[in-house]
Amino acid sequence: MEFSIAQIAAMLGGEVKGNGAEKINMLAKIQDAKKGQIAFLSNPKYEHFIYTTQASAVIVKKDFQARKEITSSLILVDDPYTSFTALLEEYHKVISFQKSGIEQPSFIGDGSATGTQIYRGAFSYIGNKVTIGDNVKIYPHVFIGDNVVIGNNTILHPNVKIYADSRIGNNCVIHAGAVIGSDGFGFAPQGDGSYKSIPQLGNVLIEDNVTIGANTVIDCATLFGDSTIVRRGVKLDNLIQIAHNVEIGKNTVIAAQTGISGSTKVGESVMIAGQVGIAGHLVIANRTQIGAQSGILKSPKEEGTQLNGSPAFDLKDHFRSYVIFKRLPELNDRLRELEKKTADLKAVNITPGNNGQ
Amino acid sequence: MEFSIAQIAAMLGGEVKGNGAEKINMLAKIQDAKKGQIAFLSNPKYEHFIYTTQASAVIVKKDFQARKEITSSLILVDDPYTSFTALLEEYHKVISFQKSGIEQPSFIGDGSATGTQIYRGAFSYIGNKVTIGDNVKIYPHVFIGDNVVIGNNTILHPNVKIYADSRIGNNCVIHAGAVIGSDGFGFAPQGDGSYKSIPQLGNVLIEDNVTIGANTVIDCATLFGDSTIVRRGVKLDNLIQIAHNVEIGKNTVIAAQTGISGSTKVGESVMIAGQVGIAGHLVIANRTQIGAQSGILKSPKEEGTQLNGSPAFDLKDHFRSYVIFKRLPELNDRLRELEKKTADLKAVNITPGNNGQ
Amino acid sequence: MEFSIAQIAAMLGGEVKGNGAEKINMLAKIQDAKKGQIAFLSNPKYEHFIYTTQASAVIVKKDFQARKEITSSLILVDDPYTSFTALLEEYHKVISFQKSGIEQPSFIGDGSATGTQIYRGAFSYIGNKVTIGDNVKIYPHVFIGDNVVIGNNTILHPNVKIYADSRIGNNCVIHAGAVIGSDGFGFAPQGDGSYKSIPQLGNVLIEDNVTIGANTVIDCATLFGDSTIVRRGVKLDNLIQIAHNVEIGKNTVIAAQTGISGSTKVGESVMIAGQVGIAGHLVIANRTQIGAQSGILKSPKEEGTQLNGSPAFDLKDHFRSYVIFKRLPELNDRLRELEKKTADLKAVNITPGNNGQ
Repeated sequence: MEFSIAQIAAMLGGEVKGNGAEKINMLAKIQDAKKGQIAFLSNPKYEHFIYTTQASAVIVKKDFQARKEITSSLILVDDPYTSFTALLEEYHKVISFQKSGIEQPSFIGDGSATGTQIYRGAFSYIGNKVTIGDNVKIYPHVFIGDNVVIGNNTILHPNVKIYADSRIGNNCVIHAGAVIGSDGFGFAPQGDGSYKSIPQLGNVLIEDNVTIGANTVIDCATLFGDSTIVRRGVKLDNLIQIAHNVEIGKNTVIAAQTGISGSTKVGESVMIAGQVGIAGHLVIANRTQIGAQSGILKSPKEEGTQLNGSPAFDLKDHFRSYVIFKRLPELNDRLRELEKKTADLKAVNITPGNNGQ
Repeated sequence: MEFSIAQIAAMLGGEVKGNGAEKINMLAKIQDAKKGQIAFLSNPKYEHFIYTTQASAVIVKKDFQARKEITSSLILVDDPYTSFTALLEEYHKVISFQKSGIEQPSFIGDGSATGTQIYRGAFSYIGNKVTIGDNVKIYPHVFIGDNVVIGNNTILHPNVKIYADSRIGNNCVIHAGAVIGSDGFGFAPQGDGSYKSIPQLGNVLIEDNVTIGANTVIDCATLFGDSTIVRRGVKLDNLIQIAHNVEIGKNTVIAAQTGISGSTKVGESVMIAGQVGIAGHLVIANRTQIGAQSGILKSPKEEGTQLNGSPAFDLKDHFRSYVIFKRLPELNDRLRELEKKTADLKAVNITPGNNGQ
Repeated sequence: MEFSIAQIAAMLGGEVKGNGAEKINMLAKIQDAKKGQIAFLSNPKYEHFIYTTQASAVIVKKDFQARKEITSSLILVDDPYTSFTALLEEYHKVISFQKSGIEQPSFIGDGSATGTQIYRGAFSYIGNKVTIGDNVKIYPHVFIGDNVVIGNNTILHPNVKIYADSRIGNNCVIHAGAVIGSDGFGFAPQGDGSYKSIPQLGNVLIEDNVTIGANTVIDCATLFGDSTIVRRGVKLDNLIQIAHNVEIGKNTVIAAQTGISGSTKVGESVMIAGQVGIAGHLVIANRTQIGAQSGILKSPKEEGTQLNGSPAFDLKDHFRSYVIFKRLPELNDRLRELEKKTADLKAVNITPGNNGQ
């Protein structure tokens, strides 16, 4: 990226004060910025940096009044933070879109087809009969098994592994090391105490606009024709386990290291914090909210239920119980005290019967 | 796969009603099946689909009586579900065994030898002095370090990473992203508060018929000559942590995201649910059963113990305690009530002494 | 490695009894050792092995008195265990340093530079404008994104994935499958219930002497110019989640499967056990110790605090509460008993009023 300060000002609908012709090649924080870089000043408590920064340009509020000399050029805008963010997004897009073409060596099997504007990194592997849409970025060391279908604009970060027969939608982002479509954990006990693997013949279906975090694992469905399903707009963090035949509803968000057991159906717009465990064959109602480290053993049926604890129950009730849990030694002492007291009372108690003179 | 309906009927020991010569190239559910595909009907509640399905063939029970016209050919068998499953297994085998030969580029070091009927995917890496048995499938991006030995019929899914000196048995399946033989977590505290790494010189030994889930990690043993050991028939789910010098007994099954700390010996036929943590240097008796999210801090000595909670104790006792935990605010109220009551009583209590007129 | 017994004795400052010219090419345990191998005897209970071992040499204590004939040569030293360990470390170093040079195919982008004595494994990928120091080992399938900087003597095990712009220090060890610099989990809710990804523009900064376990994930910071920071000497185990903008202080040690949420600052010399969860935006004081499976929701402000439980509080208090938790059914029974007793008492209680004759 290299633009003149005037070009950047034009992009932002701002006004230049200073040398519009100077070139900018990087964004930086005002306290760190160097020549050739652009920064912004939004929070007044950072104002002193503007008098010492080496930034070639600083984006400031229209009505900014300098109290000392400033060596940087200024770009005057309505909202410097928003302008800087917009600039960052542009920069990020430029960076992301830089990757294109086919690096070598890379591998593509028989009968596979890719759309336009593809990036296929070195050492990426595409199996047989794979269909890949337009503008897909396949980073190095990605593995795509046979018969996989991938939509448009999807980004597969380095070393994503997609087993055969998986379906991935449009505009998905899958982070490094994620595994899609590994075998479900299904074994039939044998008479001698050993286990026989049950063939896992289903696949994984991921709809549009799904984000999947690094080293997260999504197992395939057990039966042929069935799918483990992640609906559109779902956001999965890192190191999550999604077992066979799970379905995750639209716009549900799940934080890191959570695990969902086989055949559970998670509703729409559910929010699940980190390190949660959900048992198998449950149905989680829409908009359920689950606190970190909770263990879900029963299906919450009412929408918007807030759960906490392991096993989990109502969040507020859990909080109330836990407050007392912390005081249990005190409760125990009070109970013991009462026992002593009532032991005395009992003795006394006998007296009235006796003293009914 | 392409067989005629008559050939499939012969495989299943069934009888054809219809066009035995028609070709089948895929299995499907009865409600989804298309021309060229075979489906089955077992559950009577799906019967209506058989009158509308486009399947070329449907497997039905011998005594099936059609109540309307059916356009598909039928294969009559004793148990349609079992027959369909058998067909699926065959299909799966055919698919799995399709992969063979050596894709390029792939890497094999000096002094390494592989058996017959090997698949070595593109970008797979085999170090020096590696020994690999017959019929082993090494998918793309697999890393096999120096001196590793791998038995027959083992499948290494994409990007399995096996550190130097590991031993893997026959008929194992290791899923994508699993790491075998990484350094144990051992550090010696130094005088200045820093830590020095203790060299990790042991290896990992995995016996026959072991399945290891995606992104699971098994660390090597600390001392030279020692091994972290996974005994025959063990089934490990995804994202599990097995620390240095752990031993896992025969036919033990461990669910996803569980972690076992260093030097713990897990017995045979133990069942460990998901997200369990087990402390170091414990001995877990055979057939112990551990509930999800439990934390094991003491060795269960009796076989077949059922444990739950963090820290864990007897499952039923934990359940009983937890029932009361949920009612703790009520208990607290009752206790307070009693305190009030007995406060009054005490006052009264004094009276009898006084009223002994 | 091949040295004569005499050479090894010289290295250890020991004295040879036997054939100093014989060659040694491997270390082994005394009970397993074969010809050409060296073992040691330290623990007297293993003494019987020295009379039957096939080891070419055994390291023994200076004052060792054989009670039977020994066929192995002996090396007499002050402390056989320490000597053997020293030998192992040497051996390990030799093994580690064996890897050097550039295996093909490997990929290096434009404008990237590497130092001297580099190992670049086959299928390793180095992006554009990457700077790599001296004596760095880059194993097969490692991915290094654009603009990454890596110091001297750092080891990247197979398939480590480092996103663009990350900074890695000197003497770091990163284990297989670890991900450095993946996107932080940040999404802005939209009016229609969907989420929009917030561009993640910061990076990850890892200082010197840091060890990172297999399949651990460290997300990048959110804002441009910000870093997720891992300070010098930090040791991270396997399968850990470090979210965006986290900072981990010097010499802190974290066990497997722990997760730290966004923007939390962990102090120096903190010890965190396995499967711990730490909420976002907290500050964890120096030398805090956190028990396994704990959930940290509040910032421990005092140095050296010991915490346990979920949510966590003082370790000893948690222990005391948990002891009573296990006895809750008994407490409940005692409470019920008191209620019965005081129900009677109440009846009696009325009597004194009545019996004031």
